[in-house]
Amino acid sequence: MSVHVGGCAHPVVVAPLTSRFFSLPAGVRLVEPEGGSPGATHPAGFLAAGVVAGLKESGRPDMGVLAVAPQSREQSASAAVFTTNAFAAAPIVLDRAVCDLGGLVAVVMNSGNANACTGSSGLAAAAAMQSACAQALGIGSDKVAVGSTGVIGRQADAPVMAAGAGKAAEAVRSDGGPDFNQAIMTTDRFPKICAVDVDIPGGTVRLGVCGKGAGMIAPAMATMLCVVTTDAVLTATEMGPMLDAAVGGSLNRVTVDGEMSTNDAVVFLASGASGVRPDETGLARISEALEAMLLRVALMMVADGEGATKVMRLKVQGADTEKTADAVARAIGDSPLVKTAMNGADANWGRIMSAAGAALAGRSVPETALWLCGVKVVEKATACALRPADVGRLAAGMKGPEIDILLDLGSGDCSTEIYFADLGHEYITVNAEYHT
Amino acid sequence: MSVHVGGCAHPVVVAPLTSRFFSLPAGVRLVEPEGGSPGATHPAGFLAAGVVAGLKESGRPDMGVLAVAPQSREQSASAAVFTTNAFAAAPIVLDRAVCDLGGLVAVVMNSGNANACTGSSGLAAAAAMQSACAQALGIGSDKVAVGSTGVIGRQADAPVMAAGAGKAAEAVRSDGGPDFNQAIMTTDRFPKICAVDVDIPGGTVRLGVCGKGAGMIAPAMATMLCVVTTDAVLTATEMGPMLDAAVGGSLNRVTVDGEMSTNDAVVFLASGASGVRPDETGLARISEALEAMLLRVALMMVADGEGATKVMRLKVQGADTEKTADAVARAIGDSPLVKTAMNGADANWGRIMSAAGAALAGRSVPETALWLCGVKVVEKATACALRPADVGRLAAGMKGPEIDILLDLGSGDCSTEIYFADLGHEYITVNAEYHT
Repeated sequence: MSVHVGGCAHPVVVAPLTSRFFSLPAGVRLVEPEGGSPGATHPAGFLAAGVVAGLKESGRPDMGVLAVAPQSREQSASAAVFTTNAFAAAPIVLDRAVCDLGGLVAVVMNSGNANACTGSSGLAAAAAMQSACAQALGIGSDKVAVGSTGVIGRQADAPVMAAGAGKAAEAVRSDGGPDFNQAIMTTDRFPKICAVDVDIPGGTVRLGVCGKGAGMIAPAMATMLCVVTTDAVLTATEMGPMLDAAVGGSLNRVTVDGEMSTNDAVVFLASGASGVRPDETGLARISEALEAMLLRVALMMVADGEGATKVMRLKVQGADTEKTADAVARAIGDSPLVKTAMNGADANWGRIMSAAGAALAGRSVPETALWLCGVKVVEKATACALRPADVGRLAAGMKGPEIDILLDLGSGDCSTEIYFADLGHEYITVNAEYHT
Repeated sequence: MSVHVGGCAHPVVVAPLTSRFFSLPAGVRLVEPEGGSPGATHPAGFLAAGVVAGLKESGRPDMGVLAVAPQSREQSASAAVFTTNAFAAAPIVLDRAVCDLGGLVAVVMNSGNANACTGSSGLAAAAAMQSACAQALGIGSDKVAVGSTGVIGRQADAPVMAAGAGKAAEAVRSDGGPDFNQAIMTTDRFPKICAVDVDIPGGTVRLGVCGKGAGMIAPAMATMLCVVTTDAVLTATEMGPMLDAAVGGSLNRVTVDGEMSTNDAVVFLASGASGVRPDETGLARISEALEAMLLRVALMMVADGEGATKVMRLKVQGADTEKTADAVARAIGDSPLVKTAMNGADANWGRIMSAAGAALAGRSVPETALWLCGVKVVEKATACALRPADVGRLAAGMKGPEIDILLDLGSGDCSTEIYFADLGHEYITVNAEYHT
């Protein structure tokens, strides 16, 4: 299945909504966007807008506001997760310092300027954006989370940002989701949107996500911004751990811990507009659905990786510690030699072994086995003699859009799973030519 | 200055023998290769050869032997450094297990097959290579170090390798250095050779190096092999620490610890043919010269990085620990976003800050300053307002072949310095098309 995004200022492409790496938990149904209006699938109780503030040289939409509708504000709640980057952008610093993160009512986000490494004047610009949005919505500034994406180190023009934020906040409407999403896109080839219905005791609730991000496994410039919405009645105390767990099992599996950009942020807003208050079983189902939905969006981000032509799922198992499993997975997923081999549909698994072996420097792992596209290519750290049928299966598998890699270190019970993109010419073109 | 390699089977290019990142210690003179015969500059007391064993599909030379001349064997000594990769290749495993590493007399190295992940039959092939070389030279097998480079996981043909090794050992001659070097090259665009004369109390000794390697900062497939020779009279006890220190200050600054391939090896042979026995001052001068020479070769390897168009020197200072400095330097040098910006001659220093900030996740480094091409672009973690003259200087600097980056974290006294290449289209072309 694919979605055609109508009225999109960016090149219209088919979003990769099918992936064998993705499956829905029981009782969860995907709500596909229809007729170019994915906004119609968003949970009830939200308003959104995207406008031209004038930050992007292209003149494309660059300022968005997404807010809980006035009638739902009494019962709404929120949670948020931010980058741990030591040079966190001004909006992130501001959000952490002044926002009521459990009681957020709106987010205001811009593209065209990351507002990072901009010091006190950057903080002032972020605060001006926040204040203008809050004023237009008639709420306190501490109820508005600010997010930015774009080039780092360019001083933000506070009056321009504030005017844009006010304009966007005044334009919010129930079907403004797609406009919001357009406003936060940078190098994305398609918007990252998803909605699911979750059956829980007492009724059905909907979860939605608007995201942007298109990078490799370490989306540095390609900041990841996500706004997750639901019409379930939730409390901030419930939402915090739920969001942490879901991000850990999805977005952090493609970005890899510690590789977050200066601007990454995920904000989770619950309007309560469904009137459905989940019990313990309901909360567990919502958690599952949230993680599945965010994994779907994460896979879209990988598939939209700059220059990416395929997505690899890498499982490292049999490690002595979680740390070892993570280090090995990261070494493989970050290896430009592995990524280029995948791009060339080349079953050159020696590069996988070399990257893993470097991460395991000085260790002995003689029981290591490796499977590529389901074909066992290494046993006891030694190349397998492949049967012709396996060679054919491997060659065919390498040409597919999704590649499975399983590395078993045979030295323990710890494992991890990550997703990464290949590395192709388009990545060089996009990133060597994206000038400041 | 540049060198034209005559009679080279590989594309003949101009080697980057000039670099402002390189300077010679006092009393050390570079011995430039002349007339296409760099072998003539090698220290006395060595013989070498390179032949066609039939391992490379191209039919190019793929087996080389470099040995101490018979008349110098009595007084010769050696040292060696090998990869710490957990999946070390068969020759490395063999060398560690059976060689007299302080009393090596020869090396036999092949290209066209890495002999890695090849299990017991790979070990047998490496041993056959070693034994055939030793027999032809009339020395014990434990005096011959074996090295290999090429594709990982392809079973080595022991009889072919042994025949090639014997053939090469029988062909050794005093001017065979260039042939040896050709035989160990893979994707290298030019050979990595260098020789220096060192004045020490009692006379002058010569140091030479034959190397291969062309990769990014983590030369996985692009295995680094180096054979260092000298005509000084040295003992193994002196040579070991000397080699460790020199590699730490040169080759490890471009490969970055822990990123070594399955096959990396550096072998240091002293023939003693000069008859000059260094005193303590002499040993110190030889150490300095060795490190300078290996840094020169390391810079050649970076400059020959696949798709590389420029070399970056990155200094990270003001770190609280050496570990922090290393982690930050590595994060920057390995960042594909930083590498592509450099390729595009784009002063997008935000990517440097973002990569550094990710490596410093959760830390506070408000005193951070950054200089790019000598222009201060960040102060107190905030973008500097650049004067037009600085903007021009920066733009001009970014177009140069060598870029200086200085990051001061302002939080301690530890520092490190690394060298890395940019990332361009040619890297993708070479590595997506280098098929198994």
